[in-house]
Amino acid sequence: MQSTTRIYQFHEYGNPEVLKLESLPTPQPDLGEVRVRVSAMSLNRADLLWVQNNYVETPELPAKLGYEVCGTVEAVGSDVTEFKIGDRVSSIPAFSISDYANFGETAILPTRGLMKTPDNFSFSQGASFAFAYFTGYFALLELGNLQAYQTVLITAGTSTTGLAAISIAKKVGAKIIATTRTSKKRDVLLDAGADYVVATEEEDLANRVMEITNGHGADVIYDAVAGTLSEQLAKAVAIQGHWIVYGLLDTENIAPFPWMTAFIRSFRFYVYKVFDFTGNRHLGLLGNEEAFSRAKQFIAGGLADGSFPVTIDREFQGLETLPDAMNFMASNKAKGKIVVTVS
Amino acid sequence: MQSTTRIYQFHEYGNPEVLKLESLPTPQPDLGEVRVRVSAMSLNRADLLWVQNNYVETPELPAKLGYEVCGTVEAVGSDVTEFKIGDRVSSIPAFSISDYANFGETAILPTRGLMKTPDNFSFSQGASFAFAYFTGYFALLELGNLQAYQTVLITAGTSTTGLAAISIAKKVGAKIIATTRTSKKRDVLLDAGADYVVATEEEDLANRVMEITNGHGADVIYDAVAGTLSEQLAKAVAIQGHWIVYGLLDTENIAPFPWMTAFIRSFRFYVYKVFDFTGNRHLGLLGNEEAFSRAKQFIAGGLADGSFPVTIDREFQGLETLPDAMNFMASNKAKGKIVVTVS
Repeated sequence: MQSTTRIYQFHEYGNPEVLKLESLPTPQPDLGEVRVRVSAMSLNRADLLWVQNNYVETPELPAKLGYEVCGTVEAVGSDVTEFKIGDRVSSIPAFSISDYANFGETAILPTRGLMKTPDNFSFSQGASFAFAYFTGYFALLELGNLQAYQTVLITAGTSTTGLAAISIAKKVGAKIIATTRTSKKRDVLLDAGADYVVATEEEDLANRVMEITNGHGADVIYDAVAGTLSEQLAKAVAIQGHWIVYGLLDTENIAPFPWMTAFIRSFRFYVYKVFDFTGNRHLGLLGNEEAFSRAKQFIAGGLADGSFPVTIDREFQGLETLPDAMNFMASNKAKGKIVVTVS
Repeated sequence: MQSTTRIYQFHEYGNPEVLKLESLPTPQPDLGEVRVRVSAMSLNRADLLWVQNNYVETPELPAKLGYEVCGTVEAVGSDVTEFKIGDRVSSIPAFSISDYANFGETAILPTRGLMKTPDNFSFSQGASFAFAYFTGYFALLELGNLQAYQTVLITAGTSTTGLAAISIAKKVGAKIIATTRTSKKRDVLLDAGADYVVATEEEDLANRVMEITNGHGADVIYDAVAGTLSEQLAKAVAIQGHWIVYGLLDTENIAPFPWMTAFIRSFRFYVYKVFDFTGNRHLGLLGNEEAFSRAKQFIAGGLADGSFPVTIDREFQGLETLPDAMNFMASNKAKGKIVVTVS
C-alpha cells in the first residue's frame, strides 16, 4: 500500500476557506531535496496573498501553499550531505512558492531553502524567524551597508519584521530609531532594543530624526509602509543615505514619490524583496550567492547567541486549524507570528 | 594700478536681466587653483535655476554664476603641476557653484574642476561637453554598470544629455533605444547612434521595448523626465535593472511612483546628479574619487578618438550677450548647447 500524507491544496483562488486538507501520495525527495515531517507552520502575509492570487507569483491550480515551516528531516535526496534524517530544520526564503509550498504533514524542500533549527528554539519559534531576519539582513547590511556608528530608522517597528530589524541593527551596534503610530507601544520598542521611539501620529517624524541625529538624518531607513509617511521619510534620510521599502503595507495610501526631496538629498531608494538576494527563477531574479552565504552565517550567529528572538502571538493547535489561523492573520489583530502546530 | 577683470554678478534673484557685468580686482589663484582667461561660456539649465534661486544650492548675494567654460590658463597656484600657463582647459562639474562660478573674462577654478580641452575642439565645443558626458558616464557605467550585451533606454534622446548618453552607450557597445515625443526627430537619433527610436506620443513604449528586447526589458534606463512616462518606464525596465532619473524636466507633470511595478520587477531606482560622484561640500556629498578618475579617463578617451561629439545650437558673440543667451535657453527652443563667446 502506498503511503499518503495530508497536504493543503486549493483548487480556486480566494479566502482561507478555499484551503482543503487532502491525502496525497507521500512525495520522495529528489536530488538536492529533503522531506521534512512538519511540526509547526508559521503564517506569512504572502501566504494569504498567494491563495487570493494577489501575490507576485501566480498559483497554478491546484496549488499548495506555505513558506515557513519547522520540523524534522525524514528522508533526503541521494546526493544530500548537509542534512540527515532526524535533523531539526527550518525553511528559509530561498525558493519559489511555485516550486515548493509547505503546509501539511510533510514538505519537500530544497537544501538551499533550509537551515538547522537552533537547539534552544521550539518548533514554533523555528518556523517563525526566517522571513523576518533574512529580509532584514539583506536590507540593512547588503543594501544599506549599516555600520555601528550609523543610525537606522525602522518604521512599523512593532511588526515581526520591524522587531527583527531592531535586533539586527542592535547586533551591528547602530543607533536605532523605531516608529509606531501612537505612544502606546513605546515600551515594546524600547524593550526590543530601540534607542528612540517616534510616535508618528503625535510627533513630526523628520524633525525628530534630525534632532536625534544632529541634522545628519538616518543613514538607513527600513520601511514597511511606503505610504503617507513618504515625504517625511525622504526628509529624514541622510544625504546619500538608503531608503529601503520592503513591504507595501499601506497599499491603500501609497504616497506620491518625493521627487524633489530625492533630487536634493541624493538618497538611494529601493523597493526590495528578500528574493532579490536569494533568487527566484519564476520572478527572473538571479540572487546573490555571496550575500546569501553571509546572511546565513550572520543569522545563525544571532540565533545561537540569543540576540535574535521571535515573538509568537498565538499558536493554533492542529493541522486542521490553518484556515482559522489565516483568517486571524487577515484580521490584523496579531502582535507577532501566528503558528499552527501539527500534532 | 591694480588690474581688473569683468565678471558677471547678480545682487538679487530673478530672470537673466538681474545679471550685471562688473569690473572686479583680478583674482589670484590660491593653492590647487588656476586662473583661466575665458574664451567660451556654455549655458546650462542649472545656471538659470541658480540665478532664480530655484537650484539645489542657494546663492549668497552678491553671487557669480556659470558652470561650463573653456579658455586658456593664465596663472596657476604655487603647488599646481597638472596645468601650466597657456594650456587650453575646460571646466568639469567637480566643484560647487557656491565656491567657483565662472562667467566673465576670467575664472578661478580648482584643478579638480578642470580637464585639458581636446586639440580638435573649438573653445565653444570645449565649453560644452563636460556636464553632459560626466552626467551620462556616472549614470550609465557606475550606477547602471552598462555592458556591451545589454540594452539602454534613453528618454529625451535629442537633448544634449540624451545625445551624449547615446554616444557613451555606443562606445560601450550596448543596444540603444532612444525616445522622442514624435517621429519628427527620428533621424537625429539614428544618426547619433540609436539602434531603435520610439516616438512616445505615437507608440506604446513598454510594449516596444519588450518587443525589441524579446521580453527582457531595458537593463538601464537613463531618464530626464520622471514624468507622465513613469509607469511605462517601470514596465520597460528589466527585472533587477536600473532606472536612473538624472533630471526633473517634467516637474509640472511629475508622476506617481509605480510602487507595485517596482515591487514586482525589483528594479533599482535612482534620482541622481553628477555631484553624487564628484562631491559637493555645500550639498554634503562625499563623491567617489575612484569613479571620478575612471570618468575622466573614459571621457578623455572618447573625446580624443572622436566618439564624443557636441552639438552647438547657437553661438552668441561677446560677453555682453549672456542675458540674451540665457533668455534664449529659457525659451526652450535650442536643439543643442548655447554658447557665448568672449572676445
